[in-house]
Amino acid sequence: MGRTNRQYRLAKRPVGLPAPSDWDYVEQPVAEPGEGQLLIEVIYLSLDPAMRGWMNEGRSYIPPVEIGAVMRAGGVGRVIASRNPQYVVGDYVSGALGVQEYHLSDGRGLTKVDPEQAPLPVYLGVLGMPGMTAYFGLLDIGRPERGQTVVVSGAAGAVGSVVGQIAKINGCRVIGIAGGERKCRLVVEELGFDACIDYKSEDVRKALHEAAPDGVDVYFDNVGGDILDAVLTRLARGARIVICGAISQYNATDQVKGPANYLSLLVNRASMTGMVVFDYAGRYPEATTELAGWLSTGKLRSLEDVVDGGVQAFPDTLLRLFNGDNTGKLVLQVGTA
Amino acid sequence: MGRTNRQYRLAKRPVGLPAPSDWDYVEQPVAEPGEGQLLIEVIYLSLDPAMRGWMNEGRSYIPPVEIGAVMRAGGVGRVIASRNPQYVVGDYVSGALGVQEYHLSDGRGLTKVDPEQAPLPVYLGVLGMPGMTAYFGLLDIGRPERGQTVVVSGAAGAVGSVVGQIAKINGCRVIGIAGGERKCRLVVEELGFDACIDYKSEDVRKALHEAAPDGVDVYFDNVGGDILDAVLTRLARGARIVICGAISQYNATDQVKGPANYLSLLVNRASMTGMVVFDYAGRYPEATTELAGWLSTGKLRSLEDVVDGGVQAFPDTLLRLFNGDNTGKLVLQVGTA
Repeated sequence: MGRTNRQYRLAKRPVGLPAPSDWDYVEQPVAEPGEGQLLIEVIYLSLDPAMRGWMNEGRSYIPPVEIGAVMRAGGVGRVIASRNPQYVVGDYVSGALGVQEYHLSDGRGLTKVDPEQAPLPVYLGVLGMPGMTAYFGLLDIGRPERGQTVVVSGAAGAVGSVVGQIAKINGCRVIGIAGGERKCRLVVEELGFDACIDYKSEDVRKALHEAAPDGVDVYFDNVGGDILDAVLTRLARGARIVICGAISQYNATDQVKGPANYLSLLVNRASMTGMVVFDYAGRYPEATTELAGWLSTGKLRSLEDVVDGGVQAFPDTLLRLFNGDNTGKLVLQVGTA
Repeated sequence: MGRTNRQYRLAKRPVGLPAPSDWDYVEQPVAEPGEGQLLIEVIYLSLDPAMRGWMNEGRSYIPPVEIGAVMRAGGVGRVIASRNPQYVVGDYVSGALGVQEYHLSDGRGLTKVDPEQAPLPVYLGVLGMPGMTAYFGLLDIGRPERGQTVVVSGAAGAVGSVVGQIAKINGCRVIGIAGGERKCRLVVEELGFDACIDYKSEDVRKALHEAAPDGVDVYFDNVGGDILDAVLTRLARGARIVICGAISQYNATDQVKGPANYLSLLVNRASMTGMVVFDYAGRYPEATTELAGWLSTGKLRSLEDVVDGGVQAFPDTLLRLFNGDNTGKLVLQVGTA
């Protein structure tokens, strides 16, 4: 076919924020699919804070990306050639396509998606990993009850924006924490949270005291660091903290900042539990059905932040996750929809 | 009756270790019981790490001891005068008797104990708060399963020594963590733990790697600090951490050291949950029956460290909890059994 595949490969393990020199930009010919394989043209790539963790060495919930390997990334694309009976040219699929323009697959781990049902970027957001994370993390681990107070950090982000909306749908009082007036306004005015604390201009601990006078029943934590510590001082008895991520710590070059106020768990008989969305893979269809229903009835809004930059914009666009620029699901457009 | 009551009252809130000047030693005449009251002669006082927390100002799971009040302490004693129909002279009772020789009570919060069934100090140890804490903390929060690996810090202490023995009775592999060779030998040889790590002479992280090659399923934490952080690096998937206390941090004059490795909870889908024994008050009889049964059949050993010093030995004896001297349940003998 004579196509060229543009890729980013991991050149070395970053110290702190991923630098341009941590990537190898590679151009190579696109291979033809062999027996049982299919070729996918990548259209949208999902950029996620978790990617920073995958770049580190060492034991984690999935193996690190190997040095020299194409950087791992979720994506949606279109099948452009197939010798796999389950896929025909023109099918749209989502899966771990990698930071590249073309992905050769044996079909495993792919899911067909329907662009008529929802715009393709939504399959990387509300109907993708962030949506699944929000759904199972909040409902299975956080177990909020009607009338309880739910706090979520990274409230304008891909996961947090969905967590808060699901909590509202479940009859909770919802307080977001986000950085900056623009994000806070969005969270309250567009997403319907009851309140939002701007951690850049407010004392989170004091603001929580006002916004959640009876304490926090569920805290969904995407950020870690000082904000986790502040919320720990305001727990209600029997509170549940969901540890989903810690974006404030992912690029730390010193040791991670542990929650100094963790003894609040004891005082309040509270728990702090880690979650990894992959554990719920068998139940994704259940969540997808419910989330798609809420989307279609307008109960749930999908926020996407699509950067139309092509694959070469990957290194810079990834940094938007960590510098506070990004709102909603960050997606890099690599191909033509 | 012309008796004198010797007491320790809280003079001020300590900074760091409680100093002699933090106490007021008071002698005052013993009052006669009024209608509905009884007078108890205190025989044994329970000295507990939690007492340090009660001396601090601020919101916790029970109100702080007020400045000028008799220091709160559990104890067992003998009824020597009674105008309460539920108690007669000669009854033995346990309850919050305070750091003093005589306690005037309206009968509420007292439990009758039988010195024929178990020596009186046991009612402050295995059959008292430490036993209840070990029983419910391990079984309700830790939920160990047969064949799993249970780690307990403060393993030679009042709570830890019972936790490990209950875990053994439940068919677990049990690793203690304690300070010094003497304590470690006791834990393994006298209490039947499978192994004990001496945190004073060993690298806890490395030692755990060897003693728990498949990871830690349940960690019962009495100490916090660096040991909690070390155990976090060795969690098995789905591990449960019970936060019972943090003796390494109670006298800290800097901020409490939070667990820097808390993101291991995420990687391992683990949880960390705080427990306060008072929540289980309604179920104490259930635990007492089971613990007493194990004691009588020799499955469970009670370790007491009785200091026969009289009430005036209180300030110095309390410090034994924090300087590493104490093994098993620390009890101060105040009166004659």
